[in-house]
Amino acid sequence: MRKKAVVLLSGGLDSATALYYAKSKGYDCKCLIFEYGQRHKKEVESAWKIARSCGAEYQVIKIDLPWKGSALLDSKMPIPRGRSPRRIKSGIPDTYVPARNTIFLSFAASYAEATGAEAIFIGANAVDFSGYPDCRPEYYEAFRRSIRLGTKAGVEGRTIRIVTPLIDKTKAQIIRMGMRLNVPYRYTWSCYIGGKRPCLRCDSCILRAKGFKEAGLTDPLSRT
Amino acid sequence: MRKKAVVLLSGGLDSATALYYAKSKGYDCKCLIFEYGQRHKKEVESAWKIARSCGAEYQVIKIDLPWKGSALLDSKMPIPRGRSPRRIKSGIPDTYVPARNTIFLSFAASYAEATGAEAIFIGANAVDFSGYPDCRPEYYEAFRRSIRLGTKAGVEGRTIRIVTPLIDKTKAQIIRMGMRLNVPYRYTWSCYIGGKRPCLRCDSCILRAKGFKEAGLTDPLSRT
Repeated sequence: MRKKAVVLLSGGLDSATALYYAKSKGYDCKCLIFEYGQRHKKEVESAWKIARSCGAEYQVIKIDLPWKGSALLDSKMPIPRGRSPRRIKSGIPDTYVPARNTIFLSFAASYAEATGAEAIFIGANAVDFSGYPDCRPEYYEAFRRSIRLGTKAGVEGRTIRIVTPLIDKTKAQIIRMGMRLNVPYRYTWSCYIGGKRPCLRCDSCILRAKGFKEAGLTDPLSRT
Repeated sequence: MRKKAVVLLSGGLDSATALYYAKSKGYDCKCLIFEYGQRHKKEVESAWKIARSCGAEYQVIKIDLPWKGSALLDSKMPIPRGRSPRRIKSGIPDTYVPARNTIFLSFAASYAEATGAEAIFIGANAVDFSGYPDCRPEYYEAFRRSIRLGTKAGVEGRTIRIVTPLIDKTKAQIIRMGMRLNVPYRYTWSCYIGGKRPCLRCDSCILRAKGFKEAGLTDPLSRT
């Protein structure tokens, strides 16, 4: 029987790469996609397409965070635009969603434990990122420990690994890795705004553009 | 302004006591109640009544765990009955829900962070309990750390405390404490089955009966 993994899939470039990486390592991947009150559904649609593109199973989990607390959930909060990559990394912006990765990982841990998956893959990155605290390696170390101590699987020695294959890579390195793995980047969606085309001015668009530029490649989304 | 706390409320005896304890410590309490696919709704109704009994705000969060993996969620899995308190504590039974407290705490952390609450109260107990790994002090230590490292609040020094006031108490001690705090135990619901009256044979009923007996008190539910 093939080893199983749960993959957190957002529809963005990083999580798509993490999925294809997990597949390349021989895992039977089951994706979790969250509808958590985002301003737009484009990333959820992208996530479906990416899962289907490699024949991975997926579950869409709908959750409500009525307290919002993020510009990604609350249309009254402006989304920062036109910031330099350096500025983006310098603090925690309003697009941070309180405890988002903890919520996503807790569902993934439940899914992994119930289905006997031995690993959870998440495309978190702490280099070309927005300074979100739940993307840093020290957070993952702590969360791994809580899962080892707080699950039946962990107590019985069947530890669920939390794998962050992109955590210390630049966006350009992630894109090059994804190109080798044939990730269909044309299906991915990074823009926070969710218009017909990427806005090219939000933090997520700017980090993506920087990555393709530094990798010496053309973003397939820029051709459409 | 009064200090704020998020309280996880299940409708059972322990979480009701934790809520009244938090109130007695001067917290403005906001309760989180989860509908997560339990076999019955009685505990959710009990949770509402308890929140209302002390004028606490509450939010009901509906989540779906389609993978189930627990006798509390999957009606095809039998609920253990007629076991002694000693036997109940000796292993992790099928009523364990994979990563349940991690899921609940992650929502609580999000809610606390978004609303500026400084503490999360949870009525977990590691003495008269079913051996669930996510009720043990070492798990809470690890989870606290992950929240400190993985939230904006934590990074900025506004640590969200995770308070487990009942963790090392016997059920009898919890009940005595609750009586002093005027917890309306008549509203609480512990039975896993969810019939018209408590079954008195599931692990939860047995631990509750043991607690009232050792406290030398009568369970108000036994009078109805």
